[in-house]
Amino acid sequence: MDEQSRKTALRMISYGMYILTSKFEDDYCAATVTWVSQASFDPPLISVCIKGDSASYAVVKGRGEFLLHLLGEDQKDLAASFFKPSILDNGLINGQKYQLQDDLPLLTAVPAYIKCRVLDILEKGDHPLFLAEVIDAVINEESIPLELRKTDWSYGG
Amino acid sequence: MDEQSRKTALRMISYGMYILTSKFEDDYCAATVTWVSQASFDPPLISVCIKGDSASYAVVKGRGEFLLHLLGEDQKDLAASFFKPSILDNGLINGQKYQLQDDLPLLTAVPAYIKCRVLDILEKGDHPLFLAEVIDAVINEESIPLELRKTDWSYGG
Repeated sequence: MDEQSRKTALRMISYGMYILTSKFEDDYCAATVTWVSQASFDPPLISVCIKGDSASYAVVKGRGEFLLHLLGEDQKDLAASFFKPSILDNGLINGQKYQLQDDLPLLTAVPAYIKCRVLDILEKGDHPLFLAEVIDAVINEESIPLELRKTDWSYGG
Repeated sequence: MDEQSRKTALRMISYGMYILTSKFEDDYCAATVTWVSQASFDPPLISVCIKGDSASYAVVKGRGEFLLHLLGEDQKDLAASFFKPSILDNGLINGQKYQLQDDLPLLTAVPAYIKCRVLDILEKGDHPLFLAEVIDAVINEESIPLELRKTDWSYGG
């Protein structure tokens, strides 16, 4: 397999940008993720791949639940603030407002979010795949979603 | 959970459009799929969800391999031709040109494709999730990919 062809082909897959948060005991996580897809209508399932050597992986696995925040097309800066490790300071997480809801960190600036319960984890790659059931969904405002291809970033290859 | 909120939120997830093909013994399949994501860099893995009551599901599961064709932004009609069951007629599949490559049906009109080998299947939903390793990738021409949101169609909720 030609490595450059693999990279080019895999970067043709389309993604949005999302912020995943969770909390397990005293450990919080909040991370920008792109490898997300619905996986079933009935029951409503999604898949999310989380970097295996990240704090988010350990926290989500420990808790078995997470929030997936859906971002508007103008929220690139919000997405960027969660590229770095999660830091709680002055009542903010990575400088962003949040509140605890059912003991999960909910970012308040987003147009929509879904709450998910982990059903299964496939550990075969460097980004373990979490299959999770959608157990709640909230819309704050209808919004055009942020798409990875419209940013300067890519994640894939 | 409010059903309309769930539908609206899940439709905010971003997708491309792809055509998945495979062949098991004498059975061919070719289907348009949207629920696709990379799932690992090393090894290179992708996830694809396939409708559980479809012929494609049975064929891909039987064969353990498939081709995922990446489409250009002008190939909406090609995508639409694989919404219906797969029919071989007059040397075409659903009216489209193909050739067998390693005994898998390769559509010749696409800008790129990847060949995948199935590693695992999660059967918890109505669209079983196939985790597969990318074992080959070919670029025919650089192209802007077809995105689901830019069509009149949606698939999710």
